[in-house]
Amino acid sequence: MPYRAPVEEFSFLLNNVVGFDEVSATSMFEAASPDVTQAVLVEAGKLCDEVLAPLQRIGDMHPARLENGVVRTPPGFDVAWRAIAQGGWVGMAADPEFGGMALPMAVTSAVNEMMSGACLSLQIAPLMAQGQIEALQHHASDEIKALYLPKLTAGEWTATMNLTEPQAGSDVGALSSKAQPNGDGTYAVTGQKIYISWGDHDVADNICHLVLARLPNAPAGTKGISLFLVPKFIPNADGTLGAQNTVKVVSLEHKLGLHGSPTAVMQYDAATGWLIGEKEGGMAAMFTMMNNARLGVGGQGTGVAEAAYQQALSYARERKQGKSAIVNHADVRRMLGTMKADIYAARVIGLTCAVAIDMAHATGSADWQARAALLTPIAKAFGSDTGIAVADAGIQVHGGMGFVEETGAAQFSRDVRVTAIYEGTNGIQAMDLVARKMADNGEAAHRLLDEIEACAEHAKTTLPELAEAVWQASESLRESTEWLVSERDMNARFAGATCYLRAFARVLGGYLHLKAALAAPGGPREALARLYIRRLLPEHIALLAQAQIGADDLYGLTLEELAA
Amino acid sequence: MPYRAPVEEFSFLLNNVVGFDEVSATSMFEAASPDVTQAVLVEAGKLCDEVLAPLQRIGDMHPARLENGVVRTPPGFDVAWRAIAQGGWVGMAADPEFGGMALPMAVTSAVNEMMSGACLSLQIAPLMAQGQIEALQHHASDEIKALYLPKLTAGEWTATMNLTEPQAGSDVGALSSKAQPNGDGTYAVTGQKIYISWGDHDVADNICHLVLARLPNAPAGTKGISLFLVPKFIPNADGTLGAQNTVKVVSLEHKLGLHGSPTAVMQYDAATGWLIGEKEGGMAAMFTMMNNARLGVGGQGTGVAEAAYQQALSYARERKQGKSAIVNHADVRRMLGTMKADIYAARVIGLTCAVAIDMAHATGSADWQARAALLTPIAKAFGSDTGIAVADAGIQVHGGMGFVEETGAAQFSRDVRVTAIYEGTNGIQAMDLVARKMADNGEAAHRLLDEIEACAEHAKTTLPELAEAVWQASESLRESTEWLVSERDMNARFAGATCYLRAFARVLGGYLHLKAALAAPGGPREALARLYIRRLLPEHIALLAQAQIGADDLYGLTLEELAA
Repeated sequence: MPYRAPVEEFSFLLNNVVGFDEVSATSMFEAASPDVTQAVLVEAGKLCDEVLAPLQRIGDMHPARLENGVVRTPPGFDVAWRAIAQGGWVGMAADPEFGGMALPMAVTSAVNEMMSGACLSLQIAPLMAQGQIEALQHHASDEIKALYLPKLTAGEWTATMNLTEPQAGSDVGALSSKAQPNGDGTYAVTGQKIYISWGDHDVADNICHLVLARLPNAPAGTKGISLFLVPKFIPNADGTLGAQNTVKVVSLEHKLGLHGSPTAVMQYDAATGWLIGEKEGGMAAMFTMMNNARLGVGGQGTGVAEAAYQQALSYARERKQGKSAIVNHADVRRMLGTMKADIYAARVIGLTCAVAIDMAHATGSADWQARAALLTPIAKAFGSDTGIAVADAGIQVHGGMGFVEETGAAQFSRDVRVTAIYEGTNGIQAMDLVARKMADNGEAAHRLLDEIEACAEHAKTTLPELAEAVWQASESLRESTEWLVSERDMNARFAGATCYLRAFARVLGGYLHLKAALAAPGGPREALARLYIRRLLPEHIALLAQAQIGADDLYGLTLEELAA
Repeated sequence: MPYRAPVEEFSFLLNNVVGFDEVSATSMFEAASPDVTQAVLVEAGKLCDEVLAPLQRIGDMHPARLENGVVRTPPGFDVAWRAIAQGGWVGMAADPEFGGMALPMAVTSAVNEMMSGACLSLQIAPLMAQGQIEALQHHASDEIKALYLPKLTAGEWTATMNLTEPQAGSDVGALSSKAQPNGDGTYAVTGQKIYISWGDHDVADNICHLVLARLPNAPAGTKGISLFLVPKFIPNADGTLGAQNTVKVVSLEHKLGLHGSPTAVMQYDAATGWLIGEKEGGMAAMFTMMNNARLGVGGQGTGVAEAAYQQALSYARERKQGKSAIVNHADVRRMLGTMKADIYAARVIGLTCAVAIDMAHATGSADWQARAALLTPIAKAFGSDTGIAVADAGIQVHGGMGFVEETGAAQFSRDVRVTAIYEGTNGIQAMDLVARKMADNGEAAHRLLDEIEACAEHAKTTLPELAEAVWQASESLRESTEWLVSERDMNARFAGATCYLRAFARVLGGYLHLKAALAAPGGPREALARLYIRRLLPEHIALLAQAQIGADDLYGLTLEELAA
């Protein structure tokens, strides 16, 4: 069974669960009517099913490779990239002034998730471009915008983000790439950057690298970082390509998965770059791109989970053992049911975050902004964790065939593994949640919990068992949140961060399953909500207990004792 | 940092936690004195560190391959196999009459785990041979024993088990390979077998295949299955090799991991075989080998977990981010601490099972036999699940480097993944636990829980917090066990089987951590026990709740609704 993009599911979620009507009621997104949105999803679904999905295995079996300094992508990736570009999917969120569709994030997130499920190693390319477009729209000069945005929006040029250096990963502030003013408004950027997705390729004419580097005499740490746009070929004023810049691919990584996606070590040797945003304001500008990418990475996890689930279900329906197909065996049914319930949760958490981003964008409301900020690390970490867990369960459903590469079950697991690592490891997401996102003393969290409990109150008469469980879980999370913000020892918070984030996602999942059951009572959505709330939601209890233990016991073993 | 076999840890566990003194007090195992055992462990540790561990990455990078019908193993595997054989490690549990050391399972399990951590793809070979030696000792004729056991014990010949066929995986009873009597006491065995580990290779002279097949007019299902010994080369009476048998390798699987270990599709074309055990008693004979292998596979999981942990810890101590090495970051410390605590639990559960097997063997006691039977599926599933979880956490500790194959972190994860699948998937283990192993109405489980609670009572004055938590957990498991055995709908049991098994392992882990804390109070073992009991043990609550939900909700979604 080939992958089928979950178009109908997204329609249901947008229309019935995540409050997308509020988004399309804003003047900013009034064009995104239900009809237009549905047409967009259907069109994207076709692209995914027909053009992208057939490339998923090909990308794995014919890895991107470096030949004489040039990267060759897997067969068919060039044609598919052009289909993505020409369909307007690179520029779907971009400003119409530069050729974009200005679609809200709730819709672009749905499209991105579907593309991830179809072919993750290719989908990374448009995702990076979307983030760069947003960063340039917010931070670049008019001149840069006029020159670059039409090309990026049309998918004629692609985009990368360059943060990491060998000694500077999660600690971005340790980076040492340098930028020297050339005296003509440009800068000479020098340094080595690693893990650069789509750092080079052969599917489009030019590549726009956004590179973090330090100006002369910049302060240490993140405060001294500026952002530069460094194109592979320096464009002329009319958009035609000029001289090749002094940036090159040193090597490609040999990775666990995502073989179709070239991950490059890039060397910048006094490459010509343009400052984006303020001097030493590079982190702020980069975060525009990062936050976009973080939600996108959560969607990558969910997308791969969807694809892995579809394949596992299809296999389980066909594979006979004993008297019937294994899908009728209780333990296999349990795996598939919990996979589906978790995919729902991860997807709808991501969409809820996207709606918050859209509402913040459209209304400027600080509350929506805080909601979006709160949900971004949860959407990223839970989406990617769900992708990893579901793909792993997909292997298990396949039995022995799951360990054999030909079935493709293992590829989902290999490909999706990185989503818990890149764009900030899930540990970093959790630290962000319990530190920066709780700097408001948990106000944004409490507002969300108020909504959850109002929904549970509302559901009490029709779905008492489910409503009660969600309400109780929300109260537990509230107590834990109160503990968290009152804990002044940040290391104690950090020790519980991952568990707290996961518990938060569990509770959100329960709430959003309950909303679906309320929207379509008595049917399969209620059944799935029941399955989630009974089987998966209770996990939050142990997680919250662990979240509040503090850090002392972790340091109760010395490094020597850990190694003994 | 290269792998270092945990010799001291095994010494501690044998002498202080799992009651190995009872084993060496039996007349059967009186030779396995503390001194002898320690010497064996030290010697095995040297082999692992010096000979096997350097091959682990080599096996991955130079996969076993099929060339003109012959399998070529990775460079160095032949020399290492001879070192294993000449050290006596293949025959360490075998009868001294045939050259073996007759060591108890508690010791051989320790050696096997250490070898798994050093080089899993090679360790599979001696593990298979050990199982076959045991099966032949129990079920073969004296003539077969005299001819084959000295060769297998010395590692001159290797061994395979052939159960699975394309249509018969977990449902072994569906197999269709045939055996026709040749009239001279031998049989002509015909059929195709898949997933045959070390089905062919170039490290030893002969390969002894144990093959399940059906005699003419055999009843359907498992009752009609007989076991045959089919050598690659038919030995002469003096042990020299005669004619090549009509068995060949059709292909090797392209697998997610274990690239060094050849996994073959085998074709038997009227190959000459000898009946082992009774006609139509093949399953009983094969189970001797399977049960041995199941405990061994649990140890494979633990062994890989140990190796992955050692590497992750070493990386975390060296890798600087921010002000210090990442090992000092709370979330990394949490990962490493829980990895170590879970490795301890998985290891000691395996050893406890091994001691029960030894005691059953040495005393013939039905209680010990029931204990061993109860613990085998738990040791297999929890050991392999721990291997998978710890290797995955190891990737996460490495950050971006974890996704790059060169570091080797990803290989642990790829290699160990199959341990939850082969020798009976972990779902099958769980079904075995809640069905066959509870056919005594839970008596064996309750006897074990009595011991756990007695230990907790004993610890109440010195370690009140830990003792109370373990006692409570044991009581919860007891209640769940009572529910389980009273539930006559087997599908309801099966729906909860995986969660019940995992909860059982969690409680056992708490108990065995408590024992270590009692044996070495106030030190790092108590700190580790505290970490486990506070952070990981509480997981049993949600697991037991899920275990008792029954199956109805899983079938609340139709197949079409699951696919929607």
